[in-house]
Amino acid sequence: MSAKFNIDIHKTAVIVIDMQNVFCEPGQPIYVEETTGIIPKIQELTGTARQAMIPVIYLRMAVRGDGSDTGRLKDMIPSVDETLKKGSHHVEIIKELSPMEGDVIVDKPFFGGFTGTDLDTILRGRGIDTLIICGTLTNVCCETTARQAVEREYKVIFLSDANATRERPDMGWGPVSAEDIQKVTLTTLASLFCQVSPTSQIVHEIQEACTTSSSTH
Amino acid sequence: MSAKFNIDIHKTAVIVIDMQNVFCEPGQPIYVEETTGIIPKIQELTGTARQAMIPVIYLRMAVRGDGSDTGRLKDMIPSVDETLKKGSHHVEIIKELSPMEGDVIVDKPFFGGFTGTDLDTILRGRGIDTLIICGTLTNVCCETTARQAVEREYKVIFLSDANATRERPDMGWGPVSAEDIQKVTLTTLASLFCQVSPTSQIVHEIQEACTTSSSTH
Repeated sequence: MSAKFNIDIHKTAVIVIDMQNVFCEPGQPIYVEETTGIIPKIQELTGTARQAMIPVIYLRMAVRGDGSDTGRLKDMIPSVDETLKKGSHHVEIIKELSPMEGDVIVDKPFFGGFTGTDLDTILRGRGIDTLIICGTLTNVCCETTARQAVEREYKVIFLSDANATRERPDMGWGPVSAEDIQKVTLTTLASLFCQVSPTSQIVHEIQEACTTSSSTH
Repeated sequence: MSAKFNIDIHKTAVIVIDMQNVFCEPGQPIYVEETTGIIPKIQELTGTARQAMIPVIYLRMAVRGDGSDTGRLKDMIPSVDETLKKGSHHVEIIKELSPMEGDVIVDKPFFGGFTGTDLDTILRGRGIDTLIICGTLTNVCCETTARQAVEREYKVIFLSDANATRERPDMGWGPVSAEDIQKVTLTTLASLFCQVSPTSQIVHEIQEACTTSSSTH
């Protein structure tokens, strides 16, 4: 079965994952073309969240650059100390989604938002128990963060159309399209981990929750 | 790129995930037919590992049964307090893979082997830095455990033909076959997380490492 959580605006946060120049700006070293399509969705979501006083938390993948914090990550991405170095243009959030006053930015040294970061403290300190997850890549940083959050007992709402991924070449089992990765990832998450819903539905639910909240308080 | 790790028999462990009656025995509530095909591979791997004095660690998904440790898990699997209750026939390892003297069994309350368990302590205490992962389901407990291990800086070797999964019905993006899930999961893991190899190759490498080890000590 798939989960369905109620949105309590006082206990919910929006997590925007890795919408950084390195992944979202054409010509950058690890550009993911598919991120173009999710930018308007994330703009709408974060705009609605801020109006509802729901915290908007940006995760950025960013490493020290001196090799001291890249072990297994460097096994897989040998150029990581250059391409994801803190302070570089690469790791900044894209201008279309620039963080605003009151938003929170969390730098993470690996894929999962909870690995080596203070994300859990930030969420618990605010009494957050529900996370709305969007960003890129669907099946890497977003999925890892979703799995981490679920196993920490957070209620996760993963957005089906505001997470983007890219195709993969043949690694031994044939090439895989971005569409197939998206389909399998969303199906796995919806089957056993969390709620998976389109952005428009969640934006509507946040607006509804605001109306209810303001009429009863 | 894909990773390639050398096997040091003194720093490696085999992790056998959820090869329990509930998933592997026909007629059981959450039976996964595809597990039949991986049993001989896991038998060969664990046999070779024991001869090499490589620890064999079995993970079992098992909950208290009183509902006290099933929050988000119960959201997704409402029957979990019955189907995965500790002490029941359901949660025992299948007889074809019965643990032997010296093997370790770790019960876990969720999908990931590191969630709410002493797995990390067991591995660190023995100086283990490399994990060979097999079992079921490929994209749920095995993949979650692999991602957790990688972000804890373990070197992970995920077996392409000794991890099994099942098909999923249409959750909103069309039905997905077991083959497609397996292909996408292996490709994602091999692209960004760890080494993915067939069992025969790893069995051979363990045997080679034993020969080298015994000739130099």
